[in-house]
Order: sequence, then structure tokens, then C-alpha cells
Amino acid sequence: MGKTRLEAFSDGVLAIIITIMVLEMKVPHDPTPAALLGLLPVFLSYVLSFVYVGIYWNNHHHMLHTCTRVTGGILWANLHLLFWLSLLPFATGWMGENHFAPLPSAIYGLVLLAAAVAYYVLQQAIIAVQGERSLLRQAVGGDWKGKASPLLYLAGIGLTFVSTWLAQAIYVLVALIWLVPDRRIERVAGHDA
Amino acid sequence: MGKTRLEAFSDGVLAIIITIMVLEMKVPHDPTPAALLGLLPVFLSYVLSFVYVGIYWNNHHHMLHTCTRVTGGILWANLHLLFWLSLLPFATGWMGENHFAPLPSAIYGLVLLAAAVAYYVLQQAIIAVQGERSLLRQAVGGDWKGKASPLLYLAGIGLTFVSTWLAQAIYVLVALIWLVPDRRIERVAGHDA
Amino acid sequence: MGKTRLEAFSDGVLAIIITIMVLEMKVPHDPTPAALLGLLPVFLSYVLSFVYVGIYWNNHHHMLHTCTRVTGGILWANLHLLFWLSLLPFATGWMGENHFAPLPSAIYGLVLLAAAVAYYVLQQAIIAVQGERSLLRQAVGGDWKGKASPLLYLAGIGLTFVSTWLAQAIYVLVALIWLVPDRRIERVAGHDA
Amino acid sequence: MGKTRLEAFSDGVLAIIITIMVLEMKVPHDPTPAALLGLLPVFLSYVLSFVYVGIYWNNHHHMLHTCTRVTGGILWANLHLLFWLSLLPFATGWMGENHFAPLPSAIYGLVLLAAAVAYYVLQQAIIAVQGERSLLRQAVGGDWKGKASPLLYLAGIGLTFVSTWLAQAIYVLVALIWLVPDRRIERVAGHDA
Repeated sequence: MGKTRLEAFSDGVLAIIITIMVLEMKVPHDPTPAALLGLLPVFLSYVLSFVYVGIYWNNHHHMLHTCTRVTGGILWANLHLLFWLSLLPFATGWMGENHFAPLPSAIYGLVLLAAAVAYYVLQQAIIAVQGERSLLRQAVGGDWKGKASPLLYLAGIGLTFVSTWLAQAIYVLVALIWLVPDRRIERVAGHDA
Repeated sequence: MGKTRLEAFSDGVLAIIITIMVLEMKVPHDPTPAALLGLLPVFLSYVLSFVYVGIYWNNHHHMLHTCTRVTGGILWANLHLLFWLSLLPFATGWMGENHFAPLPSAIYGLVLLAAAVAYYVLQQAIIAVQGERSLLRQAVGGDWKGKASPLLYLAGIGLTFVSTWLAQAIYVLVALIWLVPDRRIERVAGHDA
Repeated sequence: MGKTRLEAFSDGVLAIIITIMVLEMKVPHDPTPAALLGLLPVFLSYVLSFVYVGIYWNNHHHMLHTCTRVTGGILWANLHLLFWLSLLPFATGWMGENHFAPLPSAIYGLVLLAAAVAYYVLQQAIIAVQGERSLLRQAVGGDWKGKASPLLYLAGIGLTFVSTWLAQAIYVLVALIWLVPDRRIERVAGHDA
Repeated sequence: MGKTRLEAFSDGVLAIIITIMVLEMKVPHDPTPAALLGLLPVFLSYVLSFVYVGIYWNNHHHMLHTCTRVTGGILWANLHLLFWLSLLPFATGWMGENHFAPLPSAIYGLVLLAAAVAYYVLQQAIIAVQGERSLLRQAVGGDWKGKASPLLYLAGIGLTFVSTWLAQAIYVLVALIWLVPDRRIERVAGHDA
């Protein structure tokens, strides 16, 4: 019951975040190839963030599928996740407009890190409500992805001041790790998608 | 039946309001710590407003859960609430960009006050439709939160011209009071979230 | 089946239109009463448009309630209505920023007129599909509101060049006529809201 | 189950895309006929893109109607389609502001081409999941529209550098071809809309 509105609200916020990011790609005044090329960094950062929001939507969708009771704690853990994801358009735009300069790239990694932590907190809140025989706990298992991601983000944030491209490579790597859909939940819950 | 669309539309508007507010945090041109620091007041006001919209979504969700019949009066009372909440991105941006100056802070409090009154009106409209044995009336009980909030907002608005930080403290206090989910309805309705 | 997605998509577009309009009320730089007063025309035009979108959402909701079969024609008639309503934020902003100057006020009336015609076309498309014993046709009856509104909009458009305030008065009048919820459908369909 | 959220998320993104495009039509400062006329190219490109998003929503709706199982592959094929459509507001604004200059018009065609390819990929992903007796495969049949559109877009892109108006004519032509609702699926699935 409550789950339907939780999903609907989350879908709404994620849909708006993913679409609002494109507004950071400002329409240039001139109809020239140079004007278009100047947008390349913003475009690349948009692609990366689009994939990240897609991953979050995808996994959020799987995770809530296992959730049978929605408590106040879960509602706020969910809003906490949405809060950090709502900062992604800002971080994306700042990083893109400044051609992946160190500080904006570090802030971008920080937002990804905070969102990952918030996702983990939401996951634990759902597991706690499900109790002993939690379907989600079985599905997540050792959760190596969930544990490796924050470490990789931290590495990325630190590396921005050494080589911003190394940091970007790490952000792309984490996205690739997650792009593989979370088959763990599909397997345990025995459902598609 | 009608309730589904009322919830869907409200969810949509609240999701957009909460996400659009982040657009007031304009991407700075320079990739410097100073540029980032300059955004701190806008960021803080964004956090406060995000929490407020989260509280409204949460309580709105609980309140409509008890609602069985949707009348024209309820539809318009709901739109009236959404109207005041739709002014929150403007008030948030103006207050943040002016570093919590008195007038914008007072207007921010005024928008919160109007939203609180609109929420109360919606609550009464639902109770009136439910009649004598209103589930919502039982759930709300003495409604000390609903009665204390407008008074606190009024105090905050008045205090902006004495000390803007005192006003902010009051706005934060009211948010904290409401952050505790409305267990009254959960208890009476015997449902989660 | 198809109706659910038609309603969801319409709700989404209407929710975005109603919320995007507030972005035309640009955050002023100064925290002064003068800056706030300068926004009054934009604010007033926002209130009027908010009420209009609310009316359209409300009546759209009632109308689709009677609709049992969704055809391609109905889908496109609905998109046609959403198209004109999507121009409302532009017309609202232009009229407000120019303090209800004649031309923007006339364009505002033109958008309202086109939306009213599109609403009528959608209504006829639904009635046509329902056939002889159309519930919607009975509900609408003589449809004096639907017939009077375009004439009043036309009068308003013409009058903008005589007295822009007279035109505004007419736009407000039509809104007031429609603010009374469409009890005709409630009566015939025997449902609330 | 999963399909409901897939549809809800897609509806949300498409609703935002279609509404955000109108923001490219910036409110002019002067209340003059010249200011309005200057917006004509942006308005025309908005109309074209509105129709295209409407077509995609319409056909997406039909296509998912036949879909019974949602896999990870379908989720990502869907996000891929939404990605290209999310670039439409940018391409529309750039083309409109530059009065249909060759390069922006070619980029516009490129976005349409990529969206068409993404739609085809999504269609094949759904057919693959449905297996031998795929309802969607029967419905699509020879799929001449799906095959002709990319070729026409390619022609349009090439022609922008010869005559931008010829390119626009082709973009309009493809829209007209698709405006006829996809009766193939309606026929096979035996449902309305």
C-alpha cells in the first residue's frame, strides 16, 4: 500500500533528476562545430550521470521489490538517498563546465560516495524490518559491490588531485561494475527484472 | 478511485518541487573552493526546504491513507496546499542567495505558515467528509503539532528583524518536531508507514 | 488499461506545467521590499494560471472517469490539449513580466482559448466513442460553460487593446465559473470527486 | 509487476522532456509583435518535437502493452531510448534559436536517428524475450515504418547542408508517417489504444 506511493514518488524524483541534468547542457548561441565541441565535456559528464541514475533506479526497483512493509525509517532512508542523488545535476554541471577540473571532480565523487552510503543505509533499514529470514539479506549476500564502491569512490576523490583522468576512470569503472543488473535479487526472488 | 489520481498528482508536484529547488543552486563558473563556499547558504536553505517537503510528503501520505471519499472540496484544499508549497523553491532561493537576510527569511517563514494553514484546512476537509467517527480526527487527537507550528512560524517571522539566526533556529525546530513520523495515524489505522 | 497510462502521463505533464510556471518568478538579487513588490504582477499571473491548471486537472479527471475505451483519436486529442496547456508558463511569464501589457495579455487569452477548444475536442472524441448512450454526453448536458468560455476568452482578447484590466477581469471571471467543480458528472456517474 | 514501474518511470521522463522543451522558448523582454515573431522558429521546432515525443509515448505505450516479462536487458534498452529522447530539448532549442541552420538541423536529425535505432533495439529485446510466438513480432510484421524512418533521417541529415528546408520537410514527413497510430498492435492484441 504505502509501497506504491514510495515507488511512485521515487520514480518521479529520479525521472526529474535524470531529465533536469540535460538542462546543464546550455544551448550555445552559434550554430558552429566549435560551439558543439565546447559542450563535449558537459555531454560526457551527462552520459556518466545518466548511467548512474539509471543504475540507481534499476537497483532501487529490485530492492523495493523485496520490501513488504514500509516504515517511517524506510521512508526517511529513501528520502535521504534521493537528497544526495538530487545533487548530481549540480555536481555534473560543475564538473562538465570546468572540463573535469580536480575540485569539481572530487565533489562529484563525494556526491556518488554519499549516495552509495545512503543506498546502503536504506538497504539495511529494509533488511532490519524483514527480520531473520530477510529475502533482501539473502539476495545481497556478501554484497561485495556495495562494499567495494565506497572504497573506489574514496580512491577516486583522492586521485582527482593527482590525475583527474584517473579519477574519472574509477567513476566509470564503478558504473560498469553496477551496470550488470543485480541478478542476486532476481535469483532469490525468482522474478524477472 | 479518485484518490489514486489525487495522490499521483500530489506526488508529481511534490517530486518536482523538491527537485526544482536544487536548480536555485546555480553552477559556479570557477572550479575553486571559494566558489563552492559561496554556495553554502543556498545549500543550507536547500537542505532545510528538502526536509520540509519530505515532511509534507510523508504526512500527506499518512493523511490521505485515512481518506476514503474524495470530494471537490478536498481536491481544491489539496491544490491550495500544493500552491503554497510551490512557492518554496522561490523563497528558498531568495533566502539562500541573500545569506538569510531578514526580509527573505520572513517571506520564507510566511510561505511555511501559509502551507501549514493550508495543510490544516485540508485535514479539516477530510475530517468533515468522514463525519462523526472520523478515523483522521481520532488519529490527529489534540493535534498539538498542528497548533504549535503556526505560532512558532509567526514567532520566527517576527524575529527575523531582531535576529535572523533565531528565526532560522525556529524553522529548524519546527522541522525537527515534525520529523518524528506521525505515529498517531499509524497507531489508529494499524498500518505501517 | 490504456486509461491508466493516459491519466498518469497527463497528471505528469500537468504537474510539471503547474510547477514550472513558478520558475518564471525569478529570484531577485536584492533582499528589499522593492524587489519583492516588483514581482507582484508575475505573482498574480502565476496565481491565475495555477488556478486554471487546477481547473483543467480537476475537470480532466472527471471527464476521463466516464471514459471506458481509449482510442488513438482520444490519445491525440489529449496530447493536443496538453500542448496548449504547455504554453501557459510562457504566456504567464510574458504577461507578468510586462505588467499585463495588451499584446502579452491577448496571447495569454489566445492560449486559454486554444486550450478550451482542445478540451471541447477531447470531450467530443470521448462522447463519440461512447456512442448513443454516452454517460459523458448526459453529464455535460447543454454544456453552457463549455460554450460560454470561448466567447468570453474572445471578448477578453479583443478588450486587451481597449483596457487590459477589463480583459484580466474576464479571465478571472471564466476561472470563477469553472471553479465550481463539475457536479454534472458527479451527479450522473454517482461518484465523488 | 516490474512493467508498472517501467511504464511509470518512462511516462515521467517523457512528460518532463515534453514540458521542459517549452522552457527553451525564453520569455522575451518586450511586449511587442517583433519579440513574438522572433520566437517563431523556436515555436515551430517546439511543435515538431512535441509531436515526436507524443508519437514515441504513443507507440511505447502500445509496444509495452504486448510485453509480459521485463528483463534487465529490456530495462536498459528502455533507458537507452530515454537517453536519446532526453537530448531532444537541447537539439530543439539549438535548431530553433539558430533558425534551422544546417549544423543544428543535422544534429536534430541525428538525435531522431539515434532514438529510432534505440526504439528498434528495445523492440527486438521485447521480441527476443517473447520467443517464437511473439505477439509483438506479429504486430510489427514487415515493420516498413521502422525500416524507412532511419533511412529518411539519414537523408535529412545529409540534405541539411544542401537545403535545410528540405531536411525539415523530411523530418515532418517521418512524423506524419508515424502520426497514424500503430494499428498493427491494436489489431493483433485486439485492444483499444
